[in-house]
Amino acid sequence: MPDYAEITYRVADHVATVTLHRPEARNGYTVRMADELADAFARADADEDVRVAVLTGEGSDFCVGADLSQGGFDFDETGPGAHWQEPAGRVSKQVFAMNKPVIAAIRGAAIGGGITITLSADYRLAATDARFGFVFTRRGIYPEGASAWFLPRLVGLGRAMDWMISGRVFDAEEAQAAGLVHRLHEPERLLDAAYELAADLVANTAPVSVAVTRQLLYRMSGVDSPAPVHEVDSRLIASIPTNPDAVEGVLSFLQKRPPTFTQRVNDDLPDFLPWR
Amino acid sequence: MPDYAEITYRVADHVATVTLHRPEARNGYTVRMADELADAFARADADEDVRVAVLTGEGSDFCVGADLSQGGFDFDETGPGAHWQEPAGRVSKQVFAMNKPVIAAIRGAAIGGGITITLSADYRLAATDARFGFVFTRRGIYPEGASAWFLPRLVGLGRAMDWMISGRVFDAEEAQAAGLVHRLHEPERLLDAAYELAADLVANTAPVSVAVTRQLLYRMSGVDSPAPVHEVDSRLIASIPTNPDAVEGVLSFLQKRPPTFTQRVNDDLPDFLPWR
Amino acid sequence: MPDYAEITYRVADHVATVTLHRPEARNGYTVRMADELADAFARADADEDVRVAVLTGEGSDFCVGADLSQGGFDFDETGPGAHWQEPAGRVSKQVFAMNKPVIAAIRGAAIGGGITITLSADYRLAATDARFGFVFTRRGIYPEGASAWFLPRLVGLGRAMDWMISGRVFDAEEAQAAGLVHRLHEPERLLDAAYELAADLVANTAPVSVAVTRQLLYRMSGVDSPAPVHEVDSRLIASIPTNPDAVEGVLSFLQKRPPTFTQRVNDDLPDFLPWR
Repeated sequence: MPDYAEITYRVADHVATVTLHRPEARNGYTVRMADELADAFARADADEDVRVAVLTGEGSDFCVGADLSQGGFDFDETGPGAHWQEPAGRVSKQVFAMNKPVIAAIRGAAIGGGITITLSADYRLAATDARFGFVFTRRGIYPEGASAWFLPRLVGLGRAMDWMISGRVFDAEEAQAAGLVHRLHEPERLLDAAYELAADLVANTAPVSVAVTRQLLYRMSGVDSPAPVHEVDSRLIASIPTNPDAVEGVLSFLQKRPPTFTQRVNDDLPDFLPWR
Repeated sequence: MPDYAEITYRVADHVATVTLHRPEARNGYTVRMADELADAFARADADEDVRVAVLTGEGSDFCVGADLSQGGFDFDETGPGAHWQEPAGRVSKQVFAMNKPVIAAIRGAAIGGGITITLSADYRLAATDARFGFVFTRRGIYPEGASAWFLPRLVGLGRAMDWMISGRVFDAEEAQAAGLVHRLHEPERLLDAAYELAADLVANTAPVSVAVTRQLLYRMSGVDSPAPVHEVDSRLIASIPTNPDAVEGVLSFLQKRPPTFTQRVNDDLPDFLPWR
Repeated sequence: MPDYAEITYRVADHVATVTLHRPEARNGYTVRMADELADAFARADADEDVRVAVLTGEGSDFCVGADLSQGGFDFDETGPGAHWQEPAGRVSKQVFAMNKPVIAAIRGAAIGGGITITLSADYRLAATDARFGFVFTRRGIYPEGASAWFLPRLVGLGRAMDWMISGRVFDAEEAQAAGLVHRLHEPERLLDAAYELAADLVANTAPVSVAVTRQLLYRMSGVDSPAPVHEVDSRLIASIPTNPDAVEGVLSFLQKRPPTFTQRVNDDLPDFLPWR
């Protein structure tokens, strides 16, 4: 297990679990935690044995936001430079770039950076006791992690305005109704539900198909016209006849058996993807 | 009636009905079907008598996706070339480009290409027995028809991720709640409902207004700022005083009678639209 | 009070109220009204005492759309020129550009320009008796105010297509379910609810944080990638240690007291924002 101080990382059953681990501070976010999270997701992405990552928090809160226990915000010792990346974005960027799905499992408070770091995850599952807040305007600060880009795409511009302008805290039901959260579970069932979803993805989906689909959605859904998406799609579909996973996908379907996909994201991603 | 083998095409009451017609194969999608569909929509777009197109499937399923009866995917005989367009996009592109609204009426299975070809339609009406699946990751393949562009705009990025990463099949109720489907109807009522909607559009809307509005939404909603949209809007509104349909629209409204719009998309589209 | 003929403007408790005021014509929209509204919002934006603007209509309807009492559309006397801005966009643009939140409070009819001028407001609160219509296709005209840009971002592309292609009138419940409207209130409670929301924003949020957040969402959510948003976010977060509002935000939170933010949008906006 890697030597992390503020998170834990473990791999089992092809699932990497990344856990915020400062329960004594309700997982208050720090620069160190940010860098450890980014490192852990990069590790999960590089590990061929890992198919899915689960992001969760130790204890009854996911993350209460930036750690204010020192009475202020935590910055790098050397201070922000010209190309300095703020800490929430360090995680949000790495999760965005991954070739594997990420499932966030959120209990209790997910406030400030505690929610923005999850916005580039594929799934946000929440406990019925979860509560959320983009509280930046109430602290005299600003939304980060490119949340101004992600949130309107998840919940619509109107709800994003409401949550981000008012900075109010809202509950799990409102989060689900708006589309921020995919599904709600009883707190004690939450992590099991995340692993069941992960296991379904591991068993039934092709890793390269998942990686390409994920990046198609992230890189191509924001362009101003579908024309370039048709171009990528056509190259992808043209590659199918020589793709062992596509053959296996069809055969296993016709034979009504589980598929055994052999292509791996480390070696077998198409080389013509425009975002590579 | 044109000489199609895998679809049917008929025009009545200013409505063109395009029907997938391989009920023996649950309307499994083929390259021939794709090309016939694209041809039929181009025909409907060019026919001045046609105001609205309805897209539906013969039998109890709309379309189960790519026809796998030969054990693999159907490609052009000559094979994919440099500018080859994959088959779902052939239809999706033509529907996108149309100057007339398209209403998809979906019964039973709409899987893979069976749902992606409908994403650029103006309306998706579904039967209560409909079920949907962006099953690509489960077959080792990729989403097509520029569905990575359309789907997040219809249902939000979070739901699009869920459906496209997991590849799971979901029911009509979930599709409607997410915004993929506009309305649900009993299976035996579905086609009537589509025709009632089409008849309302024929009777009450101005063809040129509909064509411009449709393209405004498709071509301008994805730009990164409202500024260029304001420019187009201003040119459009400036053209109103010389537009007979605008005069008729106001007069018929004030006189509380149905409008008789005379402008036609074949001849009377404004010549300054940036996407022309 | 400024000398307006078709609207009223007043400021109290740091809230500017802008009221369409042609109740005898159900607040039918005119070029003069458009220019007065744009002027009033510019005034509110420049007035350091104003923190929030409320937009509402006198009488039982918000605005029935373009005034047709002369049997046609109202244009500038000089007529549209090369850079002429159509009247709905004059308001929509000014509201979009503001550094202060705008709350629209809508009773009764909000039709045509009567709804498009509210789409760049932060909030749309509606009375339970409100009804809405993007009726352009039924009048032989076109959507304006860059509504083709805003509406799909608020309610999704599918619902936007439905409303804008059909031009049908729909009720408050449908508007809220789709995300066009944030909250519904009894008609007699509507304006109080708007002022309660405004008072909460005035008391609890930092003006500069609100201005930056609002513009981050409007200017950066539409770019094709989160990368440039991360850059802006990083510069904003890097500026926190020297920002008195951020210090006050943290201190007041830790001390469990209401914040007293001192930074003002007239003087203290960051100078590196890319849209300035």
